[in-house]
Amino acid sequence: MTQEASSPLYAAIDLGSNSFHMLIVRHISGSVQTMAKIKRKVRLAAGLDENNCLSHEAMQRGWDCLSLFAERLQDIQKQNIRIVGTATLRTATNADTFLSQAKKILGYEIEVIDGEEEAATIYKGVAHTSGGCGRRLVVDIGGASTELIIGQGFDAKVLNSLKMGCVTWLENHFKDRQLSADNFANAIAAAKERLRPILTQYTSIGWDVCVGASGTVQALQEIMLAQGMDEVITHAKLKRLQKQAMLTDHLEELEIEGLTLERALVFPSGLSILIAIFELLNIDSMTLSGGALREGLVYEMVDELKQDNIQARTIASLQSRYQLDKAYGEQVANLAVKLLGQCEENWISETQGIAILEAAAKLHEIGLTIDFKTGGEHSAYLLQNLDLPGYTRAQKQLLSEVLRRYREHLTSLPVQHAVSDVSAQRILRLLRISVILSHRRSPDLEPNILLKSNADKLIINLSSQWLKANPLTAAELEMEVNRQSDLNWPLVITTH
Amino acid sequence: MTQEASSPLYAAIDLGSNSFHMLIVRHISGSVQTMAKIKRKVRLAAGLDENNCLSHEAMQRGWDCLSLFAERLQDIQKQNIRIVGTATLRTATNADTFLSQAKKILGYEIEVIDGEEEAATIYKGVAHTSGGCGRRLVVDIGGASTELIIGQGFDAKVLNSLKMGCVTWLENHFKDRQLSADNFANAIAAAKERLRPILTQYTSIGWDVCVGASGTVQALQEIMLAQGMDEVITHAKLKRLQKQAMLTDHLEELEIEGLTLERALVFPSGLSILIAIFELLNIDSMTLSGGALREGLVYEMVDELKQDNIQARTIASLQSRYQLDKAYGEQVANLAVKLLGQCEENWISETQGIAILEAAAKLHEIGLTIDFKTGGEHSAYLLQNLDLPGYTRAQKQLLSEVLRRYREHLTSLPVQHAVSDVSAQRILRLLRISVILSHRRSPDLEPNILLKSNADKLIINLSSQWLKANPLTAAELEMEVNRQSDLNWPLVITTH
Repeated sequence: MTQEASSPLYAAIDLGSNSFHMLIVRHISGSVQTMAKIKRKVRLAAGLDENNCLSHEAMQRGWDCLSLFAERLQDIQKQNIRIVGTATLRTATNADTFLSQAKKILGYEIEVIDGEEEAATIYKGVAHTSGGCGRRLVVDIGGASTELIIGQGFDAKVLNSLKMGCVTWLENHFKDRQLSADNFANAIAAAKERLRPILTQYTSIGWDVCVGASGTVQALQEIMLAQGMDEVITHAKLKRLQKQAMLTDHLEELEIEGLTLERALVFPSGLSILIAIFELLNIDSMTLSGGALREGLVYEMVDELKQDNIQARTIASLQSRYQLDKAYGEQVANLAVKLLGQCEENWISETQGIAILEAAAKLHEIGLTIDFKTGGEHSAYLLQNLDLPGYTRAQKQLLSEVLRRYREHLTSLPVQHAVSDVSAQRILRLLRISVILSHRRSPDLEPNILLKSNADKLIINLSSQWLKANPLTAAELEMEVNRQSDLNWPLVITTH
Repeated sequence: MTQEASSPLYAAIDLGSNSFHMLIVRHISGSVQTMAKIKRKVRLAAGLDENNCLSHEAMQRGWDCLSLFAERLQDIQKQNIRIVGTATLRTATNADTFLSQAKKILGYEIEVIDGEEEAATIYKGVAHTSGGCGRRLVVDIGGASTELIIGQGFDAKVLNSLKMGCVTWLENHFKDRQLSADNFANAIAAAKERLRPILTQYTSIGWDVCVGASGTVQALQEIMLAQGMDEVITHAKLKRLQKQAMLTDHLEELEIEGLTLERALVFPSGLSILIAIFELLNIDSMTLSGGALREGLVYEMVDELKQDNIQARTIASLQSRYQLDKAYGEQVANLAVKLLGQCEENWISETQGIAILEAAAKLHEIGLTIDFKTGGEHSAYLLQNLDLPGYTRAQKQLLSEVLRRYREHLTSLPVQHAVSDVSAQRILRLLRISVILSHRRSPDLEPNILLKSNADKLIINLSSQWLKANPLTAAELEMEVNRQSDLNWPLVITTH
């Protein structure tokens, strides 16, 4: 047995305008594992007066929080720590007073990063935790600033940090705490005012996918999911949430299903900014990223994690961490893709659907590392709960439900939003067939398979000699025909 | 990232008198992971006539089963395969006819092992999968033979294989399928007859713990658990089950909660043999082993797994497989044991309770490898479902429930049968306190702790200076005082 030394800890601290956060992680086999997360709602921005001077009370709240953080920092190597301040500390005229005491408390320098660096770091955090290819528009609405970035891979191409955020917009446009049409209209109009000067930088380059990062977008997505919508944020859904909010007069009475108390106060202001961004940039849809500023800080320190294909990095990390039989996983994935290639064109129409089929094939045995008996259930539990950088919540959900059913008893899939329902079924069917036909765990021992699809009907042709020589597989195939057919997924085995 | 070659597969096949079994495993970081389990109820023993000649039908059932097994065997290296036949193949006068065809089908030799070798292999399977120290009595009731072994560590000292089993005793004593007092009495008396000649061998040596292996004992334990009893098998419980069975006239109508259909037929005969063994050997209590013959075959092939302390091997394997921070786990375990040492004598009275405290401390972060947010739940899920050689079902259950509660919100423990309820609470309390006081992950940064116990009351004395320097820990300790006190587990922090 190998005796490995404990892997070192890394800490990222973000002194934000609304909250201070500390994230402690360790780096294990190509992935970052969270060891502690501490958050305190310091509301630093609320302590700025009209002259941008921080009140002593606000500074004290910040120092109190930092002395908690300091305790944990002492045990982490200096080069593994990054501490940054953002918008409020950029703005405060007396930031130095705050910072010199803060440095004494922490024992480390605090970098007050400018808006451009903040945007660049956020972009890195997104790039390291989100899948998808092509150009990516990233939107991060913080307490006192909003970052907009277009990038590709790990490179940010356009960067901007605007002085508007969910805390400042709350104070500027919902000061009376009324959820009136006027307040919303003003908040949205003011946000558009801020956006206009930088607009053409973005529209002229364009983007393929749009990703939202951090609290505001996360809160919006949670509300949508709690209300039974799918995870994709659209303009129509944002307007629906605005209408819902306007049914309440007063912000303090706001109750929206899925909205946590903690987030309620800055919900209308954050929503207004996001609506303005959607309208001006004409955004179709946005998904939530897995990380932002703090993740950017962490991934910058753990350099070896820089790999272009985040989904591939995640799969490779799981194969290594769970000591999966990698060669066999690849075999099942190759077979599944080969079978799909024999189906009608676009039998699974989404590119992401094919990626999910391959990922499912590579990971299907992960549950066996827990126990054999209900291996599929264990696979589902792990995929459901593991952090999977590069996969959205919906994709994770689908992977989990497909793996739950990779063998034996077959039930239909629950509602999912990652691909069309037809594609989801087909991913599951091809996975199951590929697992059965590769039971012997060597590509050389796979049968020669001719497969035809006719809409939902699959016809598999195998040599009768091979079936005779492989009676266990033959018996399983026969059962599989019944299982799929029972769900009205016709499967026919013919021989030559 | 390390690229490891797939670990090789091992196969063990056991041509038993009732069922044929194939077990396929791989060896990963000090543990054996099941990759496939195939079982067919061949009922070979039922095909023996009065002259001990196997019928052609019975042989054909065996051959059909073996051709299924053969398909999977081809992909495994020769030196990683063991195939053994037991009692019925020892007895059948025409076993050669069966074996020569079987060899053709499998492509490998079948070893018909004698009773002594069977007993020795069963003992190895038990020794590799069960905890406990001292001399161990192992009882395995098969279809046509019953093995009794006394051993210590990996060495069997007394071995016997008796010609009685749950299938043969069914045919000899429950042929009319009546669950009458007479049939039970005869079955028990006949079993005692078989046992008497070897009795003194066992009683003269004696034993410290008694372990039951394989199907019959497993079925009995499942019934007890289904009926809300604990996992320990005692004579009183066996007699209760006999009474329950006698409420039904006819074996085919037997319905006992927790008794699977598959096992019902051989339940009264297996029960009778076990009662005879309990009465003649005067056994107090018996627990179920994690493995028997097949596991013995597998562990004989994977020689490097031979380690005296099976619980320690299991913990080390989990630390390695889940890449836990081993040094930190040891730190928490050492602290917990040190704190326990300051309590009143026997504050946790069972040796096994202290072992569970240490194991919980070493493994508590295992859930973080899945996700941080509900880490305790993930730890509980893993411990509940992982195969943990050396731990009984009740110990696994307790470990799981303790780990579910290792941090944050605290709830009382559910009913458990591993240690006394008071000890279980105390394990949980010391674990939580140790985790909080070692947050800084280095023994050098632990405070100097003076702890006193007074029955359920714990008084911890710390330096006020240390608490001031560690405000995060101080805040957590304060919350912990409330959490434990809310459950009527008084906890007081004093300072000097």
